[in-house]
Amino acid sequence: MTRIAIIGAGRIGRVHASTVLAHPQARLVLVCDPLEASARDLAGSHGVAWCLEPHEVFASADVDAVIIGSPTRFHVEHILEAVSAGKKVLCEKPVALELADAERCLNELGDNTDVMLGFNRRFDPTFSEIHRRVADGEIGDLHQLTVISRDPFAPSAEYVAGSGGIFKDMTIHDFDMVRFFLGDIAEVVAVGTNVDETIRAQGDFDQAMVTLTSVDGRMASIINSRTCAFGYDQRLEAFGSQGSLSADNLTATAVRAATSSQTQAKPRIMDFFLDRYIDAYRRELDAFLTSIADGAPMSPSLRDGYEALRLADAATISAHEGRIVRL
Amino acid sequence: MTRIAIIGAGRIGRVHASTVLAHPQARLVLVCDPLEASARDLAGSHGVAWCLEPHEVFASADVDAVIIGSPTRFHVEHILEAVSAGKKVLCEKPVALELADAERCLNELGDNTDVMLGFNRRFDPTFSEIHRRVADGEIGDLHQLTVISRDPFAPSAEYVAGSGGIFKDMTIHDFDMVRFFLGDIAEVVAVGTNVDETIRAQGDFDQAMVTLTSVDGRMASIINSRTCAFGYDQRLEAFGSQGSLSADNLTATAVRAATSSQTQAKPRIMDFFLDRYIDAYRRELDAFLTSIADGAPMSPSLRDGYEALRLADAATISAHEGRIVRL
Amino acid sequence: MTRIAIIGAGRIGRVHASTVLAHPQARLVLVCDPLEASARDLAGSHGVAWCLEPHEVFASADVDAVIIGSPTRFHVEHILEAVSAGKKVLCEKPVALELADAERCLNELGDNTDVMLGFNRRFDPTFSEIHRRVADGEIGDLHQLTVISRDPFAPSAEYVAGSGGIFKDMTIHDFDMVRFFLGDIAEVVAVGTNVDETIRAQGDFDQAMVTLTSVDGRMASIINSRTCAFGYDQRLEAFGSQGSLSADNLTATAVRAATSSQTQAKPRIMDFFLDRYIDAYRRELDAFLTSIADGAPMSPSLRDGYEALRLADAATISAHEGRIVRL
Amino acid sequence: MTRIAIIGAGRIGRVHASTVLAHPQARLVLVCDPLEASARDLAGSHGVAWCLEPHEVFASADVDAVIIGSPTRFHVEHILEAVSAGKKVLCEKPVALELADAERCLNELGDNTDVMLGFNRRFDPTFSEIHRRVADGEIGDLHQLTVISRDPFAPSAEYVAGSGGIFKDMTIHDFDMVRFFLGDIAEVVAVGTNVDETIRAQGDFDQAMVTLTSVDGRMASIINSRTCAFGYDQRLEAFGSQGSLSADNLTATAVRAATSSQTQAKPRIMDFFLDRYIDAYRRELDAFLTSIADGAPMSPSLRDGYEALRLADAATISAHEGRIVRL
Repeated sequence: MTRIAIIGAGRIGRVHASTVLAHPQARLVLVCDPLEASARDLAGSHGVAWCLEPHEVFASADVDAVIIGSPTRFHVEHILEAVSAGKKVLCEKPVALELADAERCLNELGDNTDVMLGFNRRFDPTFSEIHRRVADGEIGDLHQLTVISRDPFAPSAEYVAGSGGIFKDMTIHDFDMVRFFLGDIAEVVAVGTNVDETIRAQGDFDQAMVTLTSVDGRMASIINSRTCAFGYDQRLEAFGSQGSLSADNLTATAVRAATSSQTQAKPRIMDFFLDRYIDAYRRELDAFLTSIADGAPMSPSLRDGYEALRLADAATISAHEGRIVRL
Repeated sequence: MTRIAIIGAGRIGRVHASTVLAHPQARLVLVCDPLEASARDLAGSHGVAWCLEPHEVFASADVDAVIIGSPTRFHVEHILEAVSAGKKVLCEKPVALELADAERCLNELGDNTDVMLGFNRRFDPTFSEIHRRVADGEIGDLHQLTVISRDPFAPSAEYVAGSGGIFKDMTIHDFDMVRFFLGDIAEVVAVGTNVDETIRAQGDFDQAMVTLTSVDGRMASIINSRTCAFGYDQRLEAFGSQGSLSADNLTATAVRAATSSQTQAKPRIMDFFLDRYIDAYRRELDAFLTSIADGAPMSPSLRDGYEALRLADAATISAHEGRIVRL
Repeated sequence: MTRIAIIGAGRIGRVHASTVLAHPQARLVLVCDPLEASARDLAGSHGVAWCLEPHEVFASADVDAVIIGSPTRFHVEHILEAVSAGKKVLCEKPVALELADAERCLNELGDNTDVMLGFNRRFDPTFSEIHRRVADGEIGDLHQLTVISRDPFAPSAEYVAGSGGIFKDMTIHDFDMVRFFLGDIAEVVAVGTNVDETIRAQGDFDQAMVTLTSVDGRMASIINSRTCAFGYDQRLEAFGSQGSLSADNLTATAVRAATSSQTQAKPRIMDFFLDRYIDAYRRELDAFLTSIADGAPMSPSLRDGYEALRLADAATISAHEGRIVRL
Repeated sequence: MTRIAIIGAGRIGRVHASTVLAHPQARLVLVCDPLEASARDLAGSHGVAWCLEPHEVFASADVDAVIIGSPTRFHVEHILEAVSAGKKVLCEKPVALELADAERCLNELGDNTDVMLGFNRRFDPTFSEIHRRVADGEIGDLHQLTVISRDPFAPSAEYVAGSGGIFKDMTIHDFDMVRFFLGDIAEVVAVGTNVDETIRAQGDFDQAMVTLTSVDGRMASIINSRTCAFGYDQRLEAFGSQGSLSADNLTATAVRAATSSQTQAKPRIMDFFLDRYIDAYRRELDAFLTSIADGAPMSPSLRDGYEALRLADAATISAHEGRIVRL
């Protein structure tokens, strides 16, 4: 039984709380949030303790592991303190907004740490099955990867302002997915445009296309949009020498409709990230607990978090300066 | 080069004319229809001869083969005369309206004839691929067959009046399909209902479900409707010990649409039998010509035509008398 | 909070235990099974009380509701005693093996009882969405229903011996589904065959096709097999005047594969009823608890259980005597 | 009736010959190829005249229109001579290997000519339906276009040597498709890699990804491969503010297979461009003939041919020099 504290009682903290509460090998013991109402609310509804200061979490002898869901600007500080206090860490993405901060964290902790980065999509049943079948050689050598990732609704201007830009905030998941399949990347070129005038006015993009070449000469294409009328578009295609494996979008049911104007229509695809990825969050927690139980290296690792951010940084430069960036 | 005459310049005659004209091994030489305008019109547009009387077709030394598309009540007479005149015959289904007539024809000609019955669906690329893959053992032993067949629009009252009823007119294709897969049938039970008051008033059904048991103990289900809002619903599923093979409906294009309310919507399925089965008619003619060229037995044979009609007759009795009919 | 006891600690009892334990408005308080090991095992792992005798359950003041998962031959007795003791009841299907027993139960309790029958498939998200959309008029008037239901593996000879036959044991779910969509049934005809020699030797069928006509003249077709190489085949199609709604089989992931010989291949369909219907069991429990909380009539009701059994009885007669049965 | 001559009796010339022969408003009157055997063979099998020298075609009073299927290096010369001789022209893509040649041709003839470029994919029923539905506003404003185009087999080294490189030879179709949907392009970035060592040794790429930004700020992604194990992969997705429209690959039949390891498997996708695009060639010819009959401007035009080549040229520079190219 792993005793877990959650830092950050916002939306993502609540997701983690629910998976911890449902997991037979985990116990939620502490919730921390500087907003007392948030901390009390989340902790209280499950009858666990709460606090306002992260250092209380790190100091607690009752806590084995910490899930960090605080705002990104605190991630590095919380990771370093948690590790220093001997806690296992599962930290939400991205590891930092500034690459230098992530680098400092990685330099301090090195590769061999007890920190897992919350790239939940690696644990999605569909994406992870594709990864496993590619690894099993089902499609021969993997040559190309296509990742389509579109959010149902654009975030608020306030959110965009603190997000670090589309590549660090949204594409970061896709960068990790590309590295999950292709390994380290040699070259990035990103193009951004706008259909949302508010986001344009903030100097950020809401549409993006990124091409990446891996160190060993394979290619990936990422296609992003901040809005998608038909739901939360999350697809992936692995193309290899012997075939391809691709991920359809998910729908809540398996209903098909035929009418006078069409046939085989499925219901709208899932449009909320929690519905779409709830299994991924469950399996992510399970992998975290298994690594702790087995004393095995965490994966995705802190370095994975750093590398994804490095790609986001490179893409940001590429799109804003209009050039290919070599890493 | 096979020289072909067509008897009957109506809708189905025109279909056959177009496939004959497009086939490199066939030549259309004569069109026969008692309505001079029809005969002239079809023949003239292709510069071929025409006549009003079938006996002129049978007497012509320029005709190698005859495609019979006359009204059903003339089929047996035309088949017998054509065979007697040494012509090869492709006759539209059903072979007759009355089983006794079909039986007389079969008794006179025997199994070893030069008569092919126009069960075009056997030649549909999708259905014939399923048949071939079943024969190749891909799904092990075939245990169950499901045939769904729904017409887009109910026929006119006039047509219904002369049709011989839904089982002889519409289900006849499905009976042949069941025999194509399961061989001879031991038992039939049919249930009919109505949603169309006009057809009900005529004493016919517009909805039907038929269950058949083959001589060797396998089962088939046929589901029919005279109307179908979403097009010409033509599906089939072969279920075997190792798996199943099924036929999707066809659409004119491979477009998929995603909107705020649905995903993966294909366009309306094809709703006109000629669009849906044009390839089947082409391949049927090709099989007819190949049998002639090779001196090989025709398939589907006159006996196949008789047996399908026997099933239609049994289904008619079953549905109207409310009992299972053993053959 | 509803306090629940489970009678029967076998496979289905364990399913119900897990859904009760996960439901925020339910508490599992007692497990009853004549096999002490079973009762202890299920109860003990969740720290709840257990007993060997059902009358202890009915006598307990701590129990608000009883889930009956005992062998079918005890269902009526347990229902009657539970109701008599003032407990709410969720009873597994079928209500009895003999129609007379179900009738006696219904006569004693009448329509207005606190008994819900465990036809879990009504609560499956896909089937219930189709039911709702049909009720909303999306496909106009419903004319035909097709239910395909095939089990992945044939049951043991021992199980078959006590099952009451395929129609009472397996098709019973489909009969309820037909009534869920079409209401009361006027006429049933069932045909059974065998591909399994063991089952044939026991005088039961392993393949079945049933056609039903509703009191208001609509039709349904049920297609069953005790084995299915490709998994647990659970499909349904509602065909109406304006279109159709159908249920695809479920797969564990949304992966599609393309290889040198095929394209769009999805993974094997789910082949264990608990994986396939786990959401249905959760939603069934939720509906039971909601009815209790609201004092609302239970649905599916005891009468639904009786009527489904009546159809199973009629189908058994029809298939064995080779005749259409009118109800 | 338009009297047509075909220059070039190779593979593509034969495709055009077959569509011309099948079209009721066209007559094939002359076939020209410097290889007498080729010219005789194609012409003779249809009983039409043949010649060795293109100038005989241009000089012939019996020729209304010319379909140019000669090697690319002759296209401009043949176009100019044909137009000068008053013939209507349908010329295969690309218009030239060198952009300067295409530019010279365009400068000489201007926009208002009787030259149609053979971008057959615009006429593919699936792609053209998507184009029409986008134009009809079905998905709101078009924001992103994704084009996936993979050939089943890599061409020979000899073919590659004379091809002008992947972007001019293969991607040229996709560039035209992007312009068909998004109009003129402002910026191109292309990345190429190799999995085929022979092609790498020739200094060409066999894998390519291209991102394009249109003059009005919309984006397109093109994904190419010279080989594809699962067939001729030809897909497209138009993503707009209200939804998306996408093109599935085509299969020869609508069969679906379910086995112990998978479900919904369709047959291999079509792997020969003629099978895949035969309808597109037919409709292309029809559009050409309609433009002639109506005296309407040809589309796609010579300028479309020039612009696609300009994009291919820009992509070649981008991929080889590792930079974004602005047009």
